[in-house]
Amino acid sequence: MNNEMECKATLASMNFIADHIKKVASKLDTVSVIDLVKNITRSKRIFLMGAGRSGLAAKAFAMRLMHMGFDVHVVGETTAPAVQPDDLVIAVSGSGETPSIANLGAISKKIGSRLATITSNKDSTLGKISDIVVIVPGRPKEDIDYEDYQERRMIGYTQLAPLGTVFEISALVFLDAVISELMVRTGASEAELKKRHTVFE
Amino acid sequence: MNNEMECKATLASMNFIADHIKKVASKLDTVSVIDLVKNITRSKRIFLMGAGRSGLAAKAFAMRLMHMGFDVHVVGETTAPAVQPDDLVIAVSGSGETPSIANLGAISKKIGSRLATITSNKDSTLGKISDIVVIVPGRPKEDIDYEDYQERRMIGYTQLAPLGTVFEISALVFLDAVISELMVRTGASEAELKKRHTVFE
Amino acid sequence: MNNEMECKATLASMNFIADHIKKVASKLDTVSVIDLVKNITRSKRIFLMGAGRSGLAAKAFAMRLMHMGFDVHVVGETTAPAVQPDDLVIAVSGSGETPSIANLGAISKKIGSRLATITSNKDSTLGKISDIVVIVPGRPKEDIDYEDYQERRMIGYTQLAPLGTVFEISALVFLDAVISELMVRTGASEAELKKRHTVFE
Amino acid sequence: MNNEMECKATLASMNFIADHIKKVASKLDTVSVIDLVKNITRSKRIFLMGAGRSGLAAKAFAMRLMHMGFDVHVVGETTAPAVQPDDLVIAVSGSGETPSIANLGAISKKIGSRLATITSNKDSTLGKISDIVVIVPGRPKEDIDYEDYQERRMIGYTQLAPLGTVFEISALVFLDAVISELMVRTGASEAELKKRHTVFE
Repeated sequence: MNNEMECKATLASMNFIADHIKKVASKLDTVSVIDLVKNITRSKRIFLMGAGRSGLAAKAFAMRLMHMGFDVHVVGETTAPAVQPDDLVIAVSGSGETPSIANLGAISKKIGSRLATITSNKDSTLGKISDIVVIVPGRPKEDIDYEDYQERRMIGYTQLAPLGTVFEISALVFLDAVISELMVRTGASEAELKKRHTVFE
Repeated sequence: MNNEMECKATLASMNFIADHIKKVASKLDTVSVIDLVKNITRSKRIFLMGAGRSGLAAKAFAMRLMHMGFDVHVVGETTAPAVQPDDLVIAVSGSGETPSIANLGAISKKIGSRLATITSNKDSTLGKISDIVVIVPGRPKEDIDYEDYQERRMIGYTQLAPLGTVFEISALVFLDAVISELMVRTGASEAELKKRHTVFE
Repeated sequence: MNNEMECKATLASMNFIADHIKKVASKLDTVSVIDLVKNITRSKRIFLMGAGRSGLAAKAFAMRLMHMGFDVHVVGETTAPAVQPDDLVIAVSGSGETPSIANLGAISKKIGSRLATITSNKDSTLGKISDIVVIVPGRPKEDIDYEDYQERRMIGYTQLAPLGTVFEISALVFLDAVISELMVRTGASEAELKKRHTVFE
Repeated sequence: MNNEMECKATLASMNFIADHIKKVASKLDTVSVIDLVKNITRSKRIFLMGAGRSGLAAKAFAMRLMHMGFDVHVVGETTAPAVQPDDLVIAVSGSGETPSIANLGAISKKIGSRLATITSNKDSTLGKISDIVVIVPGRPKEDIDYEDYQERRMIGYTQLAPLGTVFEISALVFLDAVISELMVRTGASEAELKKRHTVFE
């Protein structure tokens, strides 16, 4: 029973997400992560793309790459130029099947640029055509990943993180962790990032 | 020592963020959360606002509120109308001092609408003028919150989550948890949310 | 010869655009315009879409429709819900072949919503599947539409309005003229529009 | 009397706008235009800003500057970095008093970057602090600019172009004309612009 003055679902949802992030970290394929990191540092320009909330995670990552001094663009924003062969295109798509993103992924490959995809689904359209695939698991299909059965029953499982929430947040946390990795590897300091952070807000 | 073929910083950063989310949950002031939830359900319309990456968290929340069937707008987007007294304005700002957002907060109060702020800083400009303040702690100023001293020394503390990262992700996870809370309280099912999710992507 | 302290190209370009707008008006198929206007007033909701600068014209129109009190959304913005059969989808595409927009147009038709397209090209993919097509001519392929041959030779024809400029501006002016038409037909006053204009800017 | 199967207001509005553009061209202060053009070509980076529909005109111009190969950003978009002293900031604001834009203009001046404003109002907050002011007249306060008195009476004057429409379109046409001027002065060809035009749409 959900007492009106408690907010059990809020707390359960936050803990559920935090636990999932830890699981994503523990299962992360570091080879693909390092491949991504190296391609970011050696590409001429970096393009981020994603639809809906995955697109917001892509934008959050793009903003930090800009803070680090990379030449980075978000597909669909005003000043994003044409992609060229020396560029890296990074797609964020839980299913790997978002039509517009899969279509742009195919165009990227035709142009000759490298394509990296952050997805839950290696065998998806995007997974198959990408040079780099980092798997970030989303909500498990079965119950096995969430242990507190009583609490789950009470609150209702799906309501802890509906639709693509688990993937979207995990992808964002992973991408922000890639920023840490890039800072360590390039020796960038937070002060340098801050200098590029807009004061226009 | 950071082995080139490991990605210690990536994993440390993800675990650091997950731990922080659990701390935010454990310290959450549930009275303010319930106040926020109730105001969301009884306001005529809901407006979300935030600058930079806090703005992206605000948008991610707005998208889910739309999926739930609320009449919701993002300040600055094309079809956001004028705010009116019956509306709820929700600001996301770690410092509570982002000039444009603080300024819009003040205008909201002048119009007579209710103002809620998600912030790390209760005593900020936004914190002081808001009807509802939900505190989401950001990166601690001191070292006390991050225990693995050796690892921290090795990787460099600030690089685990530079600038406002800790707040921005925690705020997003908190707001997504509010969606769970709203689903439980309103009885909304995931199927209903899915029906409102655009297929235009 | 272009004197450095003159700006002949600027003035020639502005006059070229103004002349083109007058030609567009003189050739406008009023039957299709009235069909568009009537569908706007009787649809449940209106969705605008377009890529690049055509997308900006679509947004400018969407903003005015919101000022008039219509329930209007821009495809791709945060709070745009799923399109339904009772909705009107308006595409802006000079060529009528923009892949993402043509694809969304096809999805709109499958859903059962009405599709209107503002385009230069009636026989395009979008033109063929739309319920309503308003032709807004873009830059003419031949020279015949621009009379001052000497000036044209001197400045270089294409530079008066490169790429899709002629279509994009003409489409915007046409759509703003549809707002006038809607105001006359619905009796809406400018004061009413102003009331819905955000003060958050 | 407005016959239901005519669309007199549509045509009158388009011609009204076209006539206004010609007037704007005829009164244009070419010294300020050339000042703007020269600052665009010699600045390190260019930032565009504007609220609402003026912001859409600013974005349309930014996109073309990108097509020309300039390092250009839109304030508020994801990858816009911090403004620096060598940069040119261009504001679009009919009134010259839009609070957020006027505020960012003041910050630009404090940073030491050059500020250009496209406005109807030289004596406005933005007009006064700008290094370059290009006057683009908006809707005249008096009736004198629109000659067809009978038609105006019949249709209703304000409905030909409500709110800031006249300024917004005139500013867009002017800025597109500046692109022509830049193409003539730099010798840029349309083919070069096309190469930078995204195929991701």
